[in-house]
Amino acid sequence: MVASWPKSLDTLYGGVEFFCKRIGEITDNRFTIQPFAAGEIVPGLQVLDAVQNGTVEMGNTALYYYWGKDPALTFGTALPFGLNSRQMNSWLRFGGGHELLNDLLKQYNCFGVAAGNTGAQMGGWFRKELKSTEDLKGLKFRVGGFAGTILAKLGVIPQQLAAGDIYPALEKGTLDACEWVGPYDDEKLGFQKVAKNYYYPGWWEGCGQGHNLINLAKWNELPKAYQAAIMAASGESWEWVLGKYDRGNPTALRRLIASGAALRPFPQDIMEASFKAASETYAELSQARPTFKKLYDSLVEFRSESYPWMQVAELGFDAFMMRHSRA
Amino acid sequence: MVASWPKSLDTLYGGVEFFCKRIGEITDNRFTIQPFAAGEIVPGLQVLDAVQNGTVEMGNTALYYYWGKDPALTFGTALPFGLNSRQMNSWLRFGGGHELLNDLLKQYNCFGVAAGNTGAQMGGWFRKELKSTEDLKGLKFRVGGFAGTILAKLGVIPQQLAAGDIYPALEKGTLDACEWVGPYDDEKLGFQKVAKNYYYPGWWEGCGQGHNLINLAKWNELPKAYQAAIMAASGESWEWVLGKYDRGNPTALRRLIASGAALRPFPQDIMEASFKAASETYAELSQARPTFKKLYDSLVEFRSESYPWMQVAELGFDAFMMRHSRA
Repeated sequence: MVASWPKSLDTLYGGVEFFCKRIGEITDNRFTIQPFAAGEIVPGLQVLDAVQNGTVEMGNTALYYYWGKDPALTFGTALPFGLNSRQMNSWLRFGGGHELLNDLLKQYNCFGVAAGNTGAQMGGWFRKELKSTEDLKGLKFRVGGFAGTILAKLGVIPQQLAAGDIYPALEKGTLDACEWVGPYDDEKLGFQKVAKNYYYPGWWEGCGQGHNLINLAKWNELPKAYQAAIMAASGESWEWVLGKYDRGNPTALRRLIASGAALRPFPQDIMEASFKAASETYAELSQARPTFKKLYDSLVEFRSESYPWMQVAELGFDAFMMRHSRA
Repeated sequence: MVASWPKSLDTLYGGVEFFCKRIGEITDNRFTIQPFAAGEIVPGLQVLDAVQNGTVEMGNTALYYYWGKDPALTFGTALPFGLNSRQMNSWLRFGGGHELLNDLLKQYNCFGVAAGNTGAQMGGWFRKELKSTEDLKGLKFRVGGFAGTILAKLGVIPQQLAAGDIYPALEKGTLDACEWVGPYDDEKLGFQKVAKNYYYPGWWEGCGQGHNLINLAKWNELPKAYQAAIMAASGESWEWVLGKYDRGNPTALRRLIASGAALRPFPQDIMEASFKAASETYAELSQARPTFKKLYDSLVEFRSESYPWMQVAELGFDAFMMRHSRA
């Protein structure tokens, strides 16, 4: 099993190790899965290809890395202005998301099941404060592929850089901003020292959903019991990864602020302009691509039902507790 | 395996059936667990006792039902003004909650693992509109045990009634209000016809956490592989139950409002007075009971770290999406 994550991402890669350990325990080591970090066998961004080709039997990745093959793959991880983590879980299990994604993954000889979720991500680190959409023009921003195409409509120049190259580029000023994950993972890379403005929310990633991918022929050959073990342990690892982020992010954020990070919300006009650009992109893609349209319509139907409820008891409870936690 | 839920609660009891099915699949039916609904073998509120005594090997229940034995058991399900569902998952797995609860459960010859979560619950159905804390005085309110002791400080007269007795009591006016779960479960009981004011949030249940309980001697006798299967399938059923509620509640709320429910937030002074009464209760119990204090201190430490982070990227994303879902 090859992962898209380096070992230093001990939530995401840790979730892969947790999953593999559990599979061994469940089956008395009759069925074992050996995890490999990004680059050990397969580069981090070629996990889908490696599973599709049968180079490896299994992988753990973010499907939106492969949006260039088909933009509909972004629904597997996060559609910008899409769903939060609970909505993603519910849409996948009970809203038809899992089935629609697997119709798509069949074209890549893969079966996929959700495993690991980051929660809502941050908007990233910016050298200069953002006042309005004007400040996005010409901004060299290290940001993931599909979200980059939306930001490009607002004048951003999206950049793809490997983790280790981001810090020096920000320091030299050849890069203006970068997004990574959230406080727990970002802290390890030290961005607050070179780009202290820490923006939220990462509207392109209301949650970051990971997937376990299994080569379809290998999946079909597996005994039913091992298939069931994979389903159960994938479900458990969804909860494990999210729980680890929900524990690690709060303390990391506190330390980041203490060491100079300036926490800032994106200006409202940037949020609105981004939402408009995203909606236009979705309209274009829905017209051109039936699979994208099918997934988009399903997600929008789910989301439009969900938020009116989520702002009642959930937000009512959280908002009261947030006021008291500030008091 | 005996559950505290009737079959009509197809999210909670459905989660139990899902769990049992998964265990059979994982083990090729070498290890099977047979589910029983509340009352089939054991009354719904005696699940802990039945597992403790070895009458049955296993149960699925809400630990706060047994707060009369020890108020610290309420931490297993929901402390009023405690944690939301994601926080509960994270606190249990990474904040020491699971270990502290199992120290306590040892006294009842049980091992427990989280399984199933309802999300934030509603505050319930009230015949008359609430204007201020004055309206709580003498109010006959069907509400769960531990929360009832807090509400009693504000003059509420807590009532314990079985599900089937609530509707006629509200209709006759011998009961003024009731709380149950949330839109999906409440809808089946038709309360909007006799007590249309539907209040939120259910501050006594920021989430409703279920537990799988296994008799400790039976747990220790289980092969390691079956223990691991129980852990994985419990984790998966946590996500399954929450996902089913998150799918079912939105549409049920829409139908309830269409059929006459009036959605209302609790007045701010009721929220504040309840919070104050709860805090006093916790101070008293922490002084008198070391186990309660240990769990309370752990939860408060977790919560005070968590909310400052939860209101950044998570609330930032959700609040923007909520505004757009209203637009």
